[in-house]
Amino acid sequence: MTDATIRILQGHDKRLRGGGPWLYSNEVQMDAAAKALPPGSVVRLVAADGKAMALAHFNPHSLIAARILTRNVEVRIDAKFFARRLKRAAELRDRLFDRPFYRLVHAEADGMPGVVIDRFGDVLVVQLNSVGMNRQEEELLAAIDQVLAPRLVVLRNDSPIRSLEGLEAEVRVVRGETTGPLEVEENGLSFVCDPQGGQKTGWYYDQRDNRAFVRRLARDQRVLDVYSYAGGFALNAAAGGAREVVVVDRAESALAMAQESAGRQGVAERCSFRKQEAYAAIDDLAAARERFGLVICDPPAFVKSRKDLAAGLKGYRKLARGAAGLVAEGGFLCIASCSHNVDEASFAREVYIGIRAAGRSARMIYRGGAGPDHPIHPALPESAYLKFLAYALD
Amino acid sequence: MTDATIRILQGHDKRLRGGGPWLYSNEVQMDAAAKALPPGSVVRLVAADGKAMALAHFNPHSLIAARILTRNVEVRIDAKFFARRLKRAAELRDRLFDRPFYRLVHAEADGMPGVVIDRFGDVLVVQLNSVGMNRQEEELLAAIDQVLAPRLVVLRNDSPIRSLEGLEAEVRVVRGETTGPLEVEENGLSFVCDPQGGQKTGWYYDQRDNRAFVRRLARDQRVLDVYSYAGGFALNAAAGGAREVVVVDRAESALAMAQESAGRQGVAERCSFRKQEAYAAIDDLAAARERFGLVICDPPAFVKSRKDLAAGLKGYRKLARGAAGLVAEGGFLCIASCSHNVDEASFAREVYIGIRAAGRSARMIYRGGAGPDHPIHPALPESAYLKFLAYALD
Repeated sequence: MTDATIRILQGHDKRLRGGGPWLYSNEVQMDAAAKALPPGSVVRLVAADGKAMALAHFNPHSLIAARILTRNVEVRIDAKFFARRLKRAAELRDRLFDRPFYRLVHAEADGMPGVVIDRFGDVLVVQLNSVGMNRQEEELLAAIDQVLAPRLVVLRNDSPIRSLEGLEAEVRVVRGETTGPLEVEENGLSFVCDPQGGQKTGWYYDQRDNRAFVRRLARDQRVLDVYSYAGGFALNAAAGGAREVVVVDRAESALAMAQESAGRQGVAERCSFRKQEAYAAIDDLAAARERFGLVICDPPAFVKSRKDLAAGLKGYRKLARGAAGLVAEGGFLCIASCSHNVDEASFAREVYIGIRAAGRSARMIYRGGAGPDHPIHPALPESAYLKFLAYALD
Repeated sequence: MTDATIRILQGHDKRLRGGGPWLYSNEVQMDAAAKALPPGSVVRLVAADGKAMALAHFNPHSLIAARILTRNVEVRIDAKFFARRLKRAAELRDRLFDRPFYRLVHAEADGMPGVVIDRFGDVLVVQLNSVGMNRQEEELLAAIDQVLAPRLVVLRNDSPIRSLEGLEAEVRVVRGETTGPLEVEENGLSFVCDPQGGQKTGWYYDQRDNRAFVRRLARDQRVLDVYSYAGGFALNAAAGGAREVVVVDRAESALAMAQESAGRQGVAERCSFRKQEAYAAIDDLAAARERFGLVICDPPAFVKSRKDLAAGLKGYRKLARGAAGLVAEGGFLCIASCSHNVDEASFAREVYIGIRAAGRSARMIYRGGAGPDHPIHPALPESAYLKFLAYALD
């Protein structure tokens, strides 16, 4: 083995022994040799007692200094290693889903720290969010070719998280040729999405099961979706038999995709599309005394960092208050938070305060998270970022 | 209004104003008049400023002194009141489920504190877990007749929780005549259950969606269910295409129901039934080096009161360790806790320690709670008692 060795400080190997996937910079011996390692090097982590514990990607300039790759210190971190991990991830998804549309790799939980891959049939959208994986792009792509032989691979390396690792933002087609918008299948429906120009990887697979739940609530309802993006919730509601769906987004491009999908699904005549900011739409609809049997709010993260926590919680409260006011008696409010800095209990508390402030009482009928193609590393419960709550209102 | 008045102590109306469904005995003026009220009386709760805030069932001898019935202090708490609440509860369920098999009333969350009603078509199983509701049995039954006209109503007043309210245990048929075991439908399958002699109300509707998830994992797997009760998980797995299901329960009567259901569902030849205690079964199967692609553990509550917490958590850890040892490489472990004294984070931590102790690594692919016919009162988040976790093991 030629990997560099990094020593874990005495007493700091406990979380690693407990299954933890990271070591912080203050938990390892950050000596001159360590600091001199090229960011993203594969290193061998050695406990204070001399025992080799794991192989990891090492970054001396990041708070997360080591990202564990394997506890088997005898293997090489090469295309073959990545291919084994990809194969395991694909087997899990293929058991869970009938069609090849899913998050294929969800970073640490799939044993590939920093790597996100969304699969759209024979198209893959890849995010490399750690310097180690960024450095091994070639081996990763070789593994992807071997296991999945995709027609098109887009690197969506424009996540803000990359800056924490000292990486630049870039979007690059690394296999095949761009063909514009794609089709994605979800819950038996076909949608248009845009992996290159759309938000994140182009589609939010994490809400799949929550959208299926919304479908159960939608029959004969008048439905409002105020952060529709490409229409995931709105069109699942239409498929569930909603008699009318008002689709609101402030982005023309998102509404255009939703409208195109509605047409393909044959539900366009039950949908109306409204280019407007969510709060403004809520205010206008309230002023017009409009009411809906089902209101869905799936906003972007209000709490992007800890310092935004108080303001973000207030935002959720305000959103819940406004949205609850538009729900008809006996109707439903569905509201989501993808802020990983907000835990479910805090989110639910703010939402309930908002509902009460709208003069309504309610029962919570559903608590959902991200779907099973977004597994959670058991030692990183905080990686369960998505909260989706549904309430029946009186 | 002739209801007695109970004064809320200064500064103790905050939770009530925030939507809370209870007042504790130290939050109200417990004077001689209050103490003299017959337990279970309907009272008018009045704030220190004299404002009438709610009607409630009052019990001077219980820690939970007042259970809020309504914020509308002008109504009467009579059969008509209960009929309105029942109707609202039934409408919600009928929107969520195609067939009339569900928890119809889930106590506080459905605005009927202390009342649990499970519906099996035209049979209702009722639990009255507060002295107030116990006292209004006649009005409740009149409301049930009016809204649902059931063929049979069984009072399963044998929950241990009744003793906290000073109530005796009893099982009584109050409408119609007993006909022995019943059929219950769940996820498109028909099961035999026993509302009079079985556990709780005879069927655990709360696991419906988690059983549907298990079905997604079961295809071609060898499956083990070590706390099968009437076969809910085991036979959902069989319906999902499991090639073999080993069904374990220590109760002959439970296994007999599971076996009968397996026969009716036409999957008996893929099922084997084993009367044994769960830990003993796990030990025997481990000794025989048996492995399963899917292991399901849905034990009774290990933590029945706060003082059992440490022992109960240890129990979950031990169960997870034993069960994980039986999971084949790439297989699944599903494990549940219905202990309301154990929060999900603590449960997940113990389970993961157990999985690690079995020498395994894992990713969590699913976190489920009780189904939407078990709504949560938003001011009582701790009433979300059911935790169901699924892991993919390496």
